[in-house]
Amino acid sequence: MNGEDELIAKFFRKKSRADTILGSGDDAAVVSVSATEALACATDTVVAGVHFHKDTPADAIAYKSLAVNLSDFAAMGATPKWALVALTMPRATQAKNEAWLKAFASGFFKLARQYKIELVGGDLTRGPLTVTTQVLGEQDGPILTRDGALTGDGIYVTGKIGDAALGLKLGLKLGLKLKASTRLQKLLSDTDKKRCVRRLQYPKPRVAAGRVIASYATSGMDISDGLLKDLGRLAQASKLGARIFIEQLPLSRGCAKYCSHLNDYTPVLAGGDDYELLFTMPEENEKALRAELSALSGSDKTSVTRIGVVEKRRGIRASLNGAEYNQPKKKGFDHFGH
Amino acid sequence: MNGEDELIAKFFRKKSRADTILGSGDDAAVVSVSATEALACATDTVVAGVHFHKDTPADAIAYKSLAVNLSDFAAMGATPKWALVALTMPRATQAKNEAWLKAFASGFFKLARQYKIELVGGDLTRGPLTVTTQVLGEQDGPILTRDGALTGDGIYVTGKIGDAALGLKLGLKLGLKLKASTRLQKLLSDTDKKRCVRRLQYPKPRVAAGRVIASYATSGMDISDGLLKDLGRLAQASKLGARIFIEQLPLSRGCAKYCSHLNDYTPVLAGGDDYELLFTMPEENEKALRAELSALSGSDKTSVTRIGVVEKRRGIRASLNGAEYNQPKKKGFDHFGH
Repeated sequence: MNGEDELIAKFFRKKSRADTILGSGDDAAVVSVSATEALACATDTVVAGVHFHKDTPADAIAYKSLAVNLSDFAAMGATPKWALVALTMPRATQAKNEAWLKAFASGFFKLARQYKIELVGGDLTRGPLTVTTQVLGEQDGPILTRDGALTGDGIYVTGKIGDAALGLKLGLKLGLKLKASTRLQKLLSDTDKKRCVRRLQYPKPRVAAGRVIASYATSGMDISDGLLKDLGRLAQASKLGARIFIEQLPLSRGCAKYCSHLNDYTPVLAGGDDYELLFTMPEENEKALRAELSALSGSDKTSVTRIGVVEKRRGIRASLNGAEYNQPKKKGFDHFGH
Repeated sequence: MNGEDELIAKFFRKKSRADTILGSGDDAAVVSVSATEALACATDTVVAGVHFHKDTPADAIAYKSLAVNLSDFAAMGATPKWALVALTMPRATQAKNEAWLKAFASGFFKLARQYKIELVGGDLTRGPLTVTTQVLGEQDGPILTRDGALTGDGIYVTGKIGDAALGLKLGLKLGLKLKASTRLQKLLSDTDKKRCVRRLQYPKPRVAAGRVIASYATSGMDISDGLLKDLGRLAQASKLGARIFIEQLPLSRGCAKYCSHLNDYTPVLAGGDDYELLFTMPEENEKALRAELSALSGSDKTSVTRIGVVEKRRGIRASLNGAEYNQPKKKGFDHFGH
């Protein structure tokens, strides 16, 4: 409570135009630009020291800043086309500036090319390192909102979750998490570690899958602040509750090892930065959805796993192998929570 | 050289989509969203301690963050419709947060209502106070770009320039500018001072005028970084030069007093933050333009003043009462200049 969502709802949600199809409160906004065309738009800010360590390579910062917006598009079933980047960076020498910007551009365009996105504008200002990326595109199919879940729907996620949170833990070599991090370092193989850090720095936006899912799902969003928190948002928007089955969560080998050895599911339940899609649909849609997803080309392919069920009773519940699981206190990463 | 413009051009200008009508490098981008509809989009960031003093009231920050984007729209002849706000703010008590956000929303919606703009999305993050506002809207008339000026065209500005720069000087009660600021305090009347600070904090975007001007002008932009610097950009985009006549610049009473008493035209030539439109057109268009502008309603009305002429010879020259005027060293505010 009293977090980001509540503050935004309290002060900033004022509908005023008839040609706004979907205003703030979902993963992206959708506006009507002609009698037949709808435009989707999303924006996300990443701040050094808050969303990424200040020593993160510039190409990884740029990549992720675009990726999280593409993930918002995936969560709407929309097709991204254009981007604008507002970049604020500290004063430095000319040479350092240029090298940093070159790397930033390289990371940005690496991902932009894959999704056929053109950078059409932006702003470059002095100040603490902050990147705000905006993406515009076409909402050419059904809009996948958060508020359509129905009691009895299955709850699904794409890909695997939890790796990014472990990647963050692995990155925290100093400070409060030293102990956990050391145990983690010993537990995971080098391949697992690399995978976790890669998943943190270079998330794969599920854009193609999102467009397919939008035709089958009753509600959906992307997981950015942790499964429990984001599922809570989806359930709240749909005015329903949910139960998840922890043993069904799709985990990588390294993440499964971490969870079982340390008996700690926090990275999976509350870790954030997964950028996988979370959606609900009647179980009878599963077969057709899987068939259509399996027809996607190479890197667009993704698995889909049923992880829970939508329930009438409000709130989020979790069980592990049939026993009720007590939710950890930290439900998710709320930048404005107390 | 080697400033913001050059760095952006060097690393970020890559055209890749056929449905991009106008990419980065102008006041806003224009993209094709259907066979008949074009969408304009602009983004601007303001950073505490760089673009505004950290004690600036939240409503003024919000107002200006939207206003500078609307000024970009004015400079394109486009009609703004929707906005997204990415707000980064420092950690504070819940009460302080709420009060600040309430004031921010109030300033934002005060201006948004005037222009019938709906806030459709955004992002709220923790970090150093930074506001990135993005505006989307319709490019329903001719696009007013920077690159169409012709030799012999008159150079024009809307409204009056220089006041905002004096407002900034007045605000600098402490620090290096103390001496100038004290002289300024004595020189200007209270009414003049209030006008200057108001023009700095609450610029009036010339949206309606911009739509009219777009039909008559050969090139145009808004003045945000100072007349000389912005005219330099326009001339460079048009591959031409320009001469301005300082005695013809439209100044407020207070600003005229400052310039003549201190023999200092810096606020007018290099001050920035004017958010008036700068454009070029054949002089024979003047009469028709003025007639159409005078038909605008109340607060949309604005004067238009001829301040110079487009010349074939590259570079920007200025004269004062017939004598060549040596440009001050500081040509304009370049966040990345050296």
